[in-house]
Amino acid sequence: MAEYKVPLKDMSFLLHEVFKADEMWQQLPLLAEQVDKETAQAILQECAKIAEQELDPIARRGDEVGVSFNDGVVTTAPGYKEAFNTYVEGGWTGLGGDVNYGGMGMPKMLTAMHEEMLCSADISFALYPVLTAGAALSLAKHGSEELKQRYLTRMYSGEWSASMCLTEAHSGSDLGIIRTKAVPQDDGSYSITGNKIFITGGEHDLTENIVHLVLAKLPDAPAGPRGISLFLVPKFNVNEDETLGERNQVSCGSIEHKMGIHASATCVMNFDGAQGYLIGEINKGLACMFTMMNFERIGVGIQGLGAAVRSYQNALEYAKDRLQGRALTGAKSPDQAADSIMVHGDVRRMLLNMKALNEGSRALSSYIAMQLDYATFAEGEVQAKGEALAALMTPVAKAFFTDLGFENTVTGQQVFGGHGFIREWGQEQLVRDARITQIYEGTNGIQAMDLLMRKVAGSKGNLLKVFTEEVSTYIDEHKSNDALAEFITPLSQALADLNELTEDLLTKSEGNMNELGASANDYLHVFGYTAMAYIWVKMAQVSQAGLENNGESGREFYQSKLHTARYYFTRLLPRRISLIASAKSGSDCMFDIDDELF
Amino acid sequence: MAEYKVPLKDMSFLLHEVFKADEMWQQLPLLAEQVDKETAQAILQECAKIAEQELDPIARRGDEVGVSFNDGVVTTAPGYKEAFNTYVEGGWTGLGGDVNYGGMGMPKMLTAMHEEMLCSADISFALYPVLTAGAALSLAKHGSEELKQRYLTRMYSGEWSASMCLTEAHSGSDLGIIRTKAVPQDDGSYSITGNKIFITGGEHDLTENIVHLVLAKLPDAPAGPRGISLFLVPKFNVNEDETLGERNQVSCGSIEHKMGIHASATCVMNFDGAQGYLIGEINKGLACMFTMMNFERIGVGIQGLGAAVRSYQNALEYAKDRLQGRALTGAKSPDQAADSIMVHGDVRRMLLNMKALNEGSRALSSYIAMQLDYATFAEGEVQAKGEALAALMTPVAKAFFTDLGFENTVTGQQVFGGHGFIREWGQEQLVRDARITQIYEGTNGIQAMDLLMRKVAGSKGNLLKVFTEEVSTYIDEHKSNDALAEFITPLSQALADLNELTEDLLTKSEGNMNELGASANDYLHVFGYTAMAYIWVKMAQVSQAGLENNGESGREFYQSKLHTARYYFTRLLPRRISLIASAKSGSDCMFDIDDELF
Repeated sequence: MAEYKVPLKDMSFLLHEVFKADEMWQQLPLLAEQVDKETAQAILQECAKIAEQELDPIARRGDEVGVSFNDGVVTTAPGYKEAFNTYVEGGWTGLGGDVNYGGMGMPKMLTAMHEEMLCSADISFALYPVLTAGAALSLAKHGSEELKQRYLTRMYSGEWSASMCLTEAHSGSDLGIIRTKAVPQDDGSYSITGNKIFITGGEHDLTENIVHLVLAKLPDAPAGPRGISLFLVPKFNVNEDETLGERNQVSCGSIEHKMGIHASATCVMNFDGAQGYLIGEINKGLACMFTMMNFERIGVGIQGLGAAVRSYQNALEYAKDRLQGRALTGAKSPDQAADSIMVHGDVRRMLLNMKALNEGSRALSSYIAMQLDYATFAEGEVQAKGEALAALMTPVAKAFFTDLGFENTVTGQQVFGGHGFIREWGQEQLVRDARITQIYEGTNGIQAMDLLMRKVAGSKGNLLKVFTEEVSTYIDEHKSNDALAEFITPLSQALADLNELTEDLLTKSEGNMNELGASANDYLHVFGYTAMAYIWVKMAQVSQAGLENNGESGREFYQSKLHTARYYFTRLLPRRISLIASAKSGSDCMFDIDDELF
Repeated sequence: MAEYKVPLKDMSFLLHEVFKADEMWQQLPLLAEQVDKETAQAILQECAKIAEQELDPIARRGDEVGVSFNDGVVTTAPGYKEAFNTYVEGGWTGLGGDVNYGGMGMPKMLTAMHEEMLCSADISFALYPVLTAGAALSLAKHGSEELKQRYLTRMYSGEWSASMCLTEAHSGSDLGIIRTKAVPQDDGSYSITGNKIFITGGEHDLTENIVHLVLAKLPDAPAGPRGISLFLVPKFNVNEDETLGERNQVSCGSIEHKMGIHASATCVMNFDGAQGYLIGEINKGLACMFTMMNFERIGVGIQGLGAAVRSYQNALEYAKDRLQGRALTGAKSPDQAADSIMVHGDVRRMLLNMKALNEGSRALSSYIAMQLDYATFAEGEVQAKGEALAALMTPVAKAFFTDLGFENTVTGQQVFGGHGFIREWGQEQLVRDARITQIYEGTNGIQAMDLLMRKVAGSKGNLLKVFTEEVSTYIDEHKSNDALAEFITPLSQALADLNELTEDLLTKSEGNMNELGASANDYLHVFGYTAMAYIWVKMAQVSQAGLENNGESGREFYQSKLHTARYYFTRLLPRRISLIASAKSGSDCMFDIDDELF
């Protein structure tokens, strides 16, 4: 197994050459105070050290040993506590946090890269701080001043972690039918009773306290999603002097045995009249939770990317080392018993698929992070546009990056042949770990519906238009650049086809809403490949300019980018054609068949 | 987890309605003696009982416990020995064997279905008898009379099992560079020395003896694949009176820890001057081994299908039971808190993908089995055509069925949402077990090259023509049937596109062989979807006729088939369009980029 090397060069290229993050930061006063190019580079380099030296080495053992459960106590795998302490001491838990409560206030463009590094090293480890960061975001936005002073500060400091308690056994993603109850108490707090399942980090030994964000319903709450409230339920109550008090009535009933992310504790959590504190308004809990969920959805997308990046690095090293067979065009290393498998077209196909999709995902993830930064730190139209694009792109980040991430970990395993199936090489763990990313935080099917029904159809196409107009403008600006024509021409076609498909589906859905459900998955991927094409053109354009101007990334880097862009347009963007054909074919073939005939 | 139910109805439909196996059998004297419709049905029913009642129940425990290794001794998981004994007592080990040595002489069309049942129940278990059957096939075809009398009879009886010893650590699929040596002895036997890895069933406690088929090189053998010979190396030598003699100098050094098929022993085998017996001629071992390998390649394809069938059954039961969300067109079960997830388009998409691809794979597998039966039992042109089609289709069965099988197990896991990731539901085991099928017995990349370079280009298109002419004739025969037009029209297009793509690639490859390597994977899938379309039209045609004539499968069955055919043509066959676009785009985008720029 190759040692993990953070792709710092690609990250710098995206930040400083493609998206010119520094210029953006300097225009946004709240960011200008916190970050500039040098700070950003220092942060990425320090974080890379943690990921490479502290986290990557514990992942394999974490998978083998897993978390253990004994009478309500969850013990993490060897090395996790030490690694977590190092991570906390480095100040990483507050990286993206609100500066008014001890956070570092860094932009999402940086924290997204930080997350990728954690996830390439070990998704299981990453889940503990990343869930805490998401809970902190919700608390920072919706919590009372008292809750923020008491809890948020300790979450940013890394002393306490957090969990997200939504799912119940009978209701997966259908939150409207949850049964957990919240009964108001005389002191203004609530008594929370119910059972939650699939709670990542619900119990563990990494921090002295755990802050649960719990969805529950008041006794008189309306039915459905409009009757859900959000509560903060600490594992240990906190005394007035901020010391830890009594154990709250919340406990871990068991942990799940899973396909992957073995070092992440997935808990059944029982709330038996636990003391909880309202976050936001009564019956408006879902909106507050969505602040966290949207953060985590993009985070899960990055998890898929992270695993795929690790898999690519391993596969590339293996392919270069492994000698087997001969090039079809004649021996490349006649002095050796066989050529390296890099000579085989199908091996190059697998590696280039991974390279093009990983770099495309990282770039698109940076683009989305930039929108989130505009949404958070800008004002007026710029802010509104950032918010619109972030809303549109969140389900795409979640589902598209994880579908590609899983595909790529499987591809990276395939490069190893039989050795890919053997545990010691690590490739199979990445497949097992990546697989969950397509499922949790709302399955990718739910993300597809969120995109097509809620975001695209729900806005009557207006959210989509924010994106397509940006792409159109970009095309217009660059269509006279002959050197870019090989990319601009297919991008124009892809954009036109996306618009036509959208129109087709929205029109059909007026007569039959099932048209949206039937084609949502195809649609999300058509959108994803098109958006990725846009980002690949941007990278190609910057790389061409970099070659001309001796840009800071260097000739080899730019040449690699241009080759990879070409590969994406030649071999991967065509995937959208079949998806469009499928999406346009209508819902009849799915709904005409009776359930009994399945 | 649903209880496994063998799809006997679909199997009967294929055998008796689509392929009219009984008529074929009665025309082939060697088969006519052994099998007719009633015998076939009885065999399928009895085998279904074994699979459902004896094998399915041990699979989960087998995954959890796995095989254990202690000082050269391999112990199978609890229940495996008992299940294997029951299997042997039922006479299943000789099902497809040569009647002159105690086999039952059953056609491949039946044994392929038998294999599917075993693999749906438990791929790990299936590997022990299926490898033995493949080794027996090679021995029956290439072994001396003495070897056959001594070993083949005991393999058919189930007393002894077999393994296939090809791979060495430094040479995966590049058999030309193996190092295992065979030194001729005075008594006509050979002394075999070398190390083999990834040997499925190389050591275990299910049978009293294990017959290893081992590739090795004589001291003066030519370099490369033309210097390989095949040897039979028993674990225990056999005395003249046929009792077991001394332990041979072959031992298991360790077993692998793998992603899946935990109950299958994957062994490192050490041969230290072990006594071996030549099978076939010196330096012609690869051809003898290919008799086994081609059998196993189709068998591995069926493994992929088997896992996918099991996953579909589980997913369908879960989807019907699970209540979550509401139909987009209004509540379907307003009296319940939520509708079954069968109402969601994306759930139906996932289930219909699985259904259409599984039934299509089973049908195509039956078609290939029929060709193998013609190749084995027919004469003259019919035999030659069967042989040609079997050769063409073997890599397709291996790679296409396993790529789809893996996809379908992942899809079946996705239907379960979070529960799919939890071990207790069994869906994740099917994913892990199915994953190996894309890798072993020659990776799917190697299969793709076998199809495009060896079979299609190697025969200058003649092998392909045998198939495309059959499809053309079929289209001509049915193009006036208006009721079939919805299927015949797209099949004609798919066939024309396949021919055009083939021509395009063969022409390009004259100037640059890399064109074949670059597009082989896409090509194999284009071929697979097209061949499956042909088989789906056949099934649709028979189902339409069945509806008109009150055929024996019944109205609901035929309706289900027609709906599923429609789904295949509408939503799945279009996948080929993108694959063709990718395949036609040439190899430059893969080979222009230097290895250092990856």
